[in-house]
Amino acid sequence: MSPTEQALSARSAARALRASSTAERAQALQRLAAALIERQDELLAANAADVAEGQIAVAEGRMSPALAARLKLTPGKLATLAQGVRAIAAMPEPLGRVLAARELAEGLVLRQVSSPIGVLLVIFESRPDVLPQVAALALKSGNGLVLKGGKEATHSNRALHRVLVEAIAPLPAGCVELVETRTQIAELLELDQLIDLVIPRGSNSLVRHIQSSTRIPVLGHADGVCHVYVDAHADLDRALDIVLDSKCDYPAACNAMETLLVHRSVDPAPFVEALRRAGVTVHERPEDWHTEYSGLECALRVVDDMDHAIEHIHAYGSGHTEVIVTRDPVAAERFLEQVDSACVFHDCSSRFADGYRFGLGAEVGISTARVHARGPVGIEGLLTTRWILRGRGQRVAPFSSGEAAFTHRELEV
Amino acid sequence: MSPTEQALSARSAARALRASSTAERAQALQRLAAALIERQDELLAANAADVAEGQIAVAEGRMSPALAARLKLTPGKLATLAQGVRAIAAMPEPLGRVLAARELAEGLVLRQVSSPIGVLLVIFESRPDVLPQVAALALKSGNGLVLKGGKEATHSNRALHRVLVEAIAPLPAGCVELVETRTQIAELLELDQLIDLVIPRGSNSLVRHIQSSTRIPVLGHADGVCHVYVDAHADLDRALDIVLDSKCDYPAACNAMETLLVHRSVDPAPFVEALRRAGVTVHERPEDWHTEYSGLECALRVVDDMDHAIEHIHAYGSGHTEVIVTRDPVAAERFLEQVDSACVFHDCSSRFADGYRFGLGAEVGISTARVHARGPVGIEGLLTTRWILRGRGQRVAPFSSGEAAFTHRELEV
Repeated sequence: MSPTEQALSARSAARALRASSTAERAQALQRLAAALIERQDELLAANAADVAEGQIAVAEGRMSPALAARLKLTPGKLATLAQGVRAIAAMPEPLGRVLAARELAEGLVLRQVSSPIGVLLVIFESRPDVLPQVAALALKSGNGLVLKGGKEATHSNRALHRVLVEAIAPLPAGCVELVETRTQIAELLELDQLIDLVIPRGSNSLVRHIQSSTRIPVLGHADGVCHVYVDAHADLDRALDIVLDSKCDYPAACNAMETLLVHRSVDPAPFVEALRRAGVTVHERPEDWHTEYSGLECALRVVDDMDHAIEHIHAYGSGHTEVIVTRDPVAAERFLEQVDSACVFHDCSSRFADGYRFGLGAEVGISTARVHARGPVGIEGLLTTRWILRGRGQRVAPFSSGEAAFTHRELEV
Repeated sequence: MSPTEQALSARSAARALRASSTAERAQALQRLAAALIERQDELLAANAADVAEGQIAVAEGRMSPALAARLKLTPGKLATLAQGVRAIAAMPEPLGRVLAARELAEGLVLRQVSSPIGVLLVIFESRPDVLPQVAALALKSGNGLVLKGGKEATHSNRALHRVLVEAIAPLPAGCVELVETRTQIAELLELDQLIDLVIPRGSNSLVRHIQSSTRIPVLGHADGVCHVYVDAHADLDRALDIVLDSKCDYPAACNAMETLLVHRSVDPAPFVEALRRAGVTVHERPEDWHTEYSGLECALRVVDDMDHAIEHIHAYGSGHTEVIVTRDPVAAERFLEQVDSACVFHDCSSRFADGYRFGLGAEVGISTARVHARGPVGIEGLLTTRWILRGRGQRVAPFSSGEAAFTHRELEV
C-alpha cells in the first residue's frame, strides 16, 4: 500500500473505531501489554538485528553511539512498556465526556462532547519503544494512527507492529498503520486531507524540519530555551537551589534552564561559582542567548529589572518554560501574568514542566504552539470536540420571526 | 511600515496589552462604540467614495452587484455595530480564567489559565463592518490584530481604522494594524513566526486559498456541505419541517442543507414536492454530492440504511453540520456518536449551527478544523492557555530520588 492508501485506511478504520466500546478498546490494550511480554523473544530477535547493524554504523562513524544506545530493547524495557500500556488501558474513558451543556430553547439541548481528532501521524527516530506507547494512546483516544519510524529501527518496528496488529485484532483493521521506511517523510507531510495532526518524537532538528514543511498542525516543540530570572528580592539560597536543579538535574531535557537572568542588584558570582562547581560552563556572550545547549552549559545575563528580563525572554526564548525567583509577591504575580510562555513558574524548578509531574497521566509531548494544546500535553491533546444538539423538530424560522425565544440556560454537565 | 514591521508591532503591542486591566480594555471599547456614532459623517463620507467606485465597477462588469451591496455603510449599520461593540465590552473577562487547578505536592500548586493567543490576522472582503467587530473581539481577548481588507473598501477601512486607533488610544499603540491593500495576501501568510492564527472572513474560495497557502493555523471553513438524513422511522411531518427550514430559511448560509438523504423505505416524493413548491431545484445526480449550492438547489440521494447515510456523509460532506430525523432513539444516538462532523443534530434544523443560536455571545466564525476550536466559535477560539505553577523553592531531584512524593490532588477552580 502507498502511504496515501495507508492514511485512507487509518481514516476509515478510525471511523469504525468510534463505534467500539470502552471495554473493547481496553481489552485490546490489555492483550497488547500481554503480547509484549509473551512474544518478547520474537521482539528481541528483531531488535538484535537493528542493534547489530547499528554497531556497524557506529564503528563506521555513520551513527552516534547515543542514537545506537536508544535502539536497544531489553526484557526490562518491554516489561516497563507493558506496564505503561496497561496504565493507559486503565485510564478513564476520554471519549464522550460532556464539556458543556446548554438548553437553547425548550426541548432543544446542546452538548459539547469530547471526540477523537481523526488520524495522527507520529514520526519517530531510533527508540522503537515509542511505537506501542503512542499506539496505546491513539487507540485509547479513538484515533487512527500512521507511524513512521527511523530506518535504523526497521526490524524492531516491523516486529512491534506485527505483534500489535495481532493483539488488537478485533478492533478495526488498519487503525494503526506502519509506513515502510523507504517512504520519504515529505510525502506524508503532503497528506493534509487525510492526516489531522503530526506528532514528531525526536531531535530538535527533526521537529523544526517538520514544522516548516507541512500545513498539518504539529504538536511539539523544536526548542526549549528556558529561563530562570533571579529577581532583586529573591531568597538567594532558594534561587541557588532552583538554578542548579533547573540546569543540572537532566541537562539534555527540553525543560532545563539555558539562560540565567540576574537582576543587577544581585551579585551573580555565587551562581556562576555554584554552576561551575557542578560542571556547568557559563557563557556571558549575547551570541548564546538563542542557544539550547542541552548539556552542562548555560548563558548568563545581568538585567536592569524585571521588565528587562521579560523583554529578554520574549526576544530570545522559545515560549516553553520560564521561572521567577522572588520573595516579592507583586513582582511574582506580574511575571506570571505577563510572560507569554506555555509554562510560567514562581519559586520552583523549570524541570517541573512535564506531563507526569503535572499529573496528566501519559504525556503525548510538550507543545509550544499557541493553538490547540499548549505546554505538557496529556491524552486530551489527542481529542477535539463535537457539538451535539437534540431537539423535537425545532426550526429556526420561529426564532427569527420572534414567535419563539432562546433560553440559553446553562445545564449541569 | 512593511507588513512584517506591522506584525512585529502588533506582537509587541499585544504583549503590552496583557498588562492592561479589564476596565481599561472595556473603556476603550466603549469609546470605540461612541466614536462610531459621533464620527459617522466622516465614516459615511469615506464609505461613499468606495460605494461610488463600486458602482462604476458594477457598471463595467468588474464587480458583482451583491459585493457592491455589502460595501455600503449606513447610520443604521453603524448603530448596530456600536451596539455589538458595547456587547463585547460587557462580556465577562475572558483572560485569566482558571480552567484547572491541581496541587502537585505540598506547597506546589498548578493552574491552567486562559490567555490570549498572540497575534491574529483577519483577512476580509468587501464588508467594512468586519473591522470594528473583529477589533473589538481581539482587544477584549488581549490579542494583537493585523487586518487586511479588500481593495474595494480601501477608503472605508482606512477611516474606520483611524477612528478606532484614536478611540482606543490609551491601549498600546500598534495593537490593531491595518495593512495597506497593495500588500499581497501571500506575503502575510508567510509570517508564521509573527502571526499565530489566520481568520478569513469572505467567500469559500478565499478561505480555500488561504487554507492551502499557509503554515499558520486557519480558523474557518471553506465548505458547508450539510446533510439531513430522513431515517426509516422518521416522523414525516417533522422531517418535512426540518428539511424545508434547513434548506430554505437562508439558502446562502454555510449551515443550510445541501444534500437530503432519504432511507429507501421512505417515499422521497413528498420531500421533492415540498422543496419544489418552495422554489428549490432538486438534483438526483452523483456529480452533485460534493456541491455547496448556497442557493435554492439541493441534491437528493436514497440510501439503503443509516450506515449508508453515514458513509455518504463522510465521503462527500465537509464536516460542518449533519442532521438525523428519526423517532428511533437508538438510531439517533448511534448517528450522534458516529458522525464525525463539527455539529451533529437530532430532530432539529441544521440552521441552529451558529454562534448566536448556540449562546456563545459573539461569533468569531465556524471552524471545520479538528484541532483548536471546532464548530461555531466564540471568543474562546481567540484564547489559549498557560500553565502557572507557584512553589516554595521546590526542586525535582527529591521527587526523583523518592525523598518527596507528588500528591496530584485536584483543587476547586
